[in-house]
Amino acid sequence: MNRKDTRWAEEMLERGQAVANAWAGPGELAAAQPMSPRDLAGYIDHTLLKADATPGAIAQLCAEAAESHFASVCVNSSQVALCARELAGTGVAVGSTVGFPLGAMVTAAKVAEARLAVEAGANEIDMVMAIGLLKAGLVDEVYGDIAAVAEVCHAGGARLKVIIEACLLTDAEKATACLTLVAAGADYAKTSTGFSSGGATATDVALMRHVVGPDLGVKAAGGIRTYADAMTMIGAGATRIGASAGRHILAGASL
Amino acid sequence: MNRKDTRWAEEMLERGQAVANAWAGPGELAAAQPMSPRDLAGYIDHTLLKADATPGAIAQLCAEAAESHFASVCVNSSQVALCARELAGTGVAVGSTVGFPLGAMVTAAKVAEARLAVEAGANEIDMVMAIGLLKAGLVDEVYGDIAAVAEVCHAGGARLKVIIEACLLTDAEKATACLTLVAAGADYAKTSTGFSSGGATATDVALMRHVVGPDLGVKAAGGIRTYADAMTMIGAGATRIGASAGRHILAGASL
Repeated sequence: MNRKDTRWAEEMLERGQAVANAWAGPGELAAAQPMSPRDLAGYIDHTLLKADATPGAIAQLCAEAAESHFASVCVNSSQVALCARELAGTGVAVGSTVGFPLGAMVTAAKVAEARLAVEAGANEIDMVMAIGLLKAGLVDEVYGDIAAVAEVCHAGGARLKVIIEACLLTDAEKATACLTLVAAGADYAKTSTGFSSGGATATDVALMRHVVGPDLGVKAAGGIRTYADAMTMIGAGATRIGASAGRHILAGASL
Repeated sequence: MNRKDTRWAEEMLERGQAVANAWAGPGELAAAQPMSPRDLAGYIDHTLLKADATPGAIAQLCAEAAESHFASVCVNSSQVALCARELAGTGVAVGSTVGFPLGAMVTAAKVAEARLAVEAGANEIDMVMAIGLLKAGLVDEVYGDIAAVAEVCHAGGARLKVIIEACLLTDAEKATACLTLVAAGADYAKTSTGFSSGGATATDVALMRHVVGPDLGVKAAGGIRTYADAMTMIGAGATRIGASAGRHILAGASL
């Protein structure tokens, strides 16, 4: 169905509700097969998003990411240029948040922040969805907000993760959010900012994987502190883990 | 001293430290003289910044603000256009956050968000300072971040409040932050976002008023829920109160 169709938003809401109604839960959740620290590192976005993080702390984050071969660092947009310098040639990607953590920034400002981050060297953008618009059923506006950011990301060769802030949503809203971000061209669905009332749960990861199918990424973030936590999320369908405790997580790997 | 002087940032740090060293505290803090609900309403920014606030909830906020004659509403930037429509002709100002609540958005994105908000009808901008840069002593960069946003605010006839997030700062850092925002052209110093580890305290308000002098505004925000809270903040030097509980605060006024 074409998005310009006036029925599109209604259809997304109906499909989200239908998915939630039919969803019997993830069943028996099994942790992923054990993996080596080096393999697990490739799943981890090494993250520092605190308001009072200094440039020195961000440089330290980058050094750790390079040493441990994490997938990326995840920082606020003012720190992207520093990270791009620190990580040049390491193979570690630079990730920037956008509209973070409330998602209530006006779309054109999210677009501007994403463009600036990509120009400064970001390879990945973690944006927060317009949560209040989704809660109001304004799916077409949620779509437009994501699609506009997706356009500047992809034009600059960056990948887009969309944070749905699952702790604030019903299952039907989670499903509608995932359907919408897929339609809008996102590359990953992400559970949480880590700044709201709850973080990633394996049940949410399984639901999100169920909705987005096998081709999109799913990133679990918020409260993931141990190797066991990480393997549970990966077992439930996560392909990326956002964590500030990445080195502690790797230390738990026994292979 | 001219800001281009290489000594400028050092001077701001030294002066902040000197203020903190000399600061004997606010002394005996007395609540402000009682005032009528109508007078007190003129101090209050009626605030709704939650990630999941719907357009309907924002419209309700505006209706309450008009009915109670609050100074302004304070919302995220995606809701400014709605508020400007709802509040046209009421005399209630529209306030938008910028770089909220972490303050770690790259400067050009803060500028873009402020410009978009002003163009959409915002009369006041509540931006978050670059807290991590201040913690690192990079005062010149903190200045530049504020001055760039001040320029677009003032060009559009809007006033700028700068949130220092006092709960994350030492007294010397609070003083340096206030000296810097005055130099950069802000119109108000504001205590807190309400999204960090602490909100407004009367002691911080008094220190901020001491540093900025009588000509700037001081806004107390975060955790102000009662008439007594508000009168304590005003007694300590606040000229604006940010609160989601504005109607409850007014209900406590007995004049």
